[in-house]
Amino acid sequence: MSSPARPSNPDLDHLIIVRTRSTLRARVENWRQAGLRIALVPTMGALHEGHLSLVKMAKANADKVIVSVFVNPLQFAPAEDLERYPRDEQGDMIKLNTVGADVMYVPDPEEMYTPNFSTSVRVDDVSEGLCGAARPHFFGGVTTVVTKLLLQALPDIAVFGEKDYQQLCVIRRLVRDLDIPVEILAAPTMREHDGLAMSSRNAYLTDHGRQVAGQMNVALKAAASALAAGEAVGRVADQGWQDLMDAGFDTIDYFEIRDAETLEPLGTGPLSGPARVFAAAWIDKTRLIDNWAV
Amino acid sequence: MSSPARPSNPDLDHLIIVRTRSTLRARVENWRQAGLRIALVPTMGALHEGHLSLVKMAKANADKVIVSVFVNPLQFAPAEDLERYPRDEQGDMIKLNTVGADVMYVPDPEEMYTPNFSTSVRVDDVSEGLCGAARPHFFGGVTTVVTKLLLQALPDIAVFGEKDYQQLCVIRRLVRDLDIPVEILAAPTMREHDGLAMSSRNAYLTDHGRQVAGQMNVALKAAASALAAGEAVGRVADQGWQDLMDAGFDTIDYFEIRDAETLEPLGTGPLSGPARVFAAAWIDKTRLIDNWAV
Repeated sequence: MSSPARPSNPDLDHLIIVRTRSTLRARVENWRQAGLRIALVPTMGALHEGHLSLVKMAKANADKVIVSVFVNPLQFAPAEDLERYPRDEQGDMIKLNTVGADVMYVPDPEEMYTPNFSTSVRVDDVSEGLCGAARPHFFGGVTTVVTKLLLQALPDIAVFGEKDYQQLCVIRRLVRDLDIPVEILAAPTMREHDGLAMSSRNAYLTDHGRQVAGQMNVALKAAASALAAGEAVGRVADQGWQDLMDAGFDTIDYFEIRDAETLEPLGTGPLSGPARVFAAAWIDKTRLIDNWAV
Repeated sequence: MSSPARPSNPDLDHLIIVRTRSTLRARVENWRQAGLRIALVPTMGALHEGHLSLVKMAKANADKVIVSVFVNPLQFAPAEDLERYPRDEQGDMIKLNTVGADVMYVPDPEEMYTPNFSTSVRVDDVSEGLCGAARPHFFGGVTTVVTKLLLQALPDIAVFGEKDYQQLCVIRRLVRDLDIPVEILAAPTMREHDGLAMSSRNAYLTDHGRQVAGQMNVALKAAASALAAGEAVGRVADQGWQDLMDAGFDTIDYFEIRDAETLEPLGTGPLSGPARVFAAAWIDKTRLIDNWAV
């Protein structure tokens, strides 16, 4: 299967584009022999300020930064938005060049998954509930591709966003359990002026949907305040659900309060330890997620 | 949970005993900075000449050899022989010292599996059929622990025996699919005078069982000869099954001819490519396996 013709690269004074695992490894090996500290930022492209904040955190903690751009087919179910997921390879190149990333790693799907690819990596426990319940195939796809990317690049650190907080917990567990030699850093969520968490999927929203979407973080913040003030978990969760309905979301996948590290459910009474509030809901046929620390 | 008191180490003029991942990594890091090539030989201990031949192959292909000794609870089902599986830590130390291994890595189970360990690595396809059918939990346990050991030690090469041929194929697939940066070497099966494949489980056999066991390789060899002479796969498999019954095995798990690389079944007619004959059967409540190239 040949790939579609690629547009020529824009003028890049710093960023190098790498499309194969062997080229990536050769470059990393050179850096390593020079004693340099290497960071990886895995993304699915369509980069926005949220991604660029991860790149900046990577630069602040390493000498060389690799940003992978790979829309991973394994983590989309057949009915999901793999085909319409936004792609902007040239735009991504320009942005990464501007923020000073060293390598944009854009593997072809055939480079990642050979025809008889047959291995999967699975994390139970922290993958259960929340997005793991709504998208049962999702974390298996994420953990398998992240394992591959980490073992292809063998970075010293890798940066993930708190926007996908459950994913962050799943990856921390994955790295610990499989002894992957990498340190995971978490970057805070970047937000629009009204507090909407930045996401490539925000591009799907109509003007109306965009207004509704801006209410999710308001509901999360209100829930976190109520919990901090001692209100009961069950009552706060019910109120949060109601807030999302009132804001105009079409469907709510969850509004839940969980342990901040193990992601275990916390009963219905007042909190006794660090917690986090999570929401996922649909507007304009688009699924949005966000979370807030208590 | 504290471990039982360990016997003191025997006199070792070369071998170093390592019990934690952090000590192992520090040592490997030193070797790597000195430009040395590192080999890992994963074992479950109770070492015999078969294991030592893997160590010798590792020494011939690397500067430093780590032998891990870990009876992996994940790859035993509840009813299997985890508790009675033979253990001889002091004997293993002496043997490894004699053949010139550099490190014997003996992690505690708590070092390998933390209380809320929740990640698993699974290889489909080549794990199906043969031992994967008879012991469905088995390869999941093997692939998870081998991934961990490879990522703890990060060796340049790892050596596995052809005795566990399906395991070898599964591990080659695992390493390819997850991009684990290691080269897998295969060592030929070591055999007793009557051709019985060496195995730690041979220690379970009575005198009578030991005699019966010696007939498995005879049946495999006869099948390989018949296939090479053009006999049909179906007929040869039936004859092999009959040979094992006649030899006195109590139960036969399989006697099968498969593609030598993909392990796919080969129909019933004459061979058209490289194949391998596989058998698994029980005697003295002990499950024995062996295989033979056509």
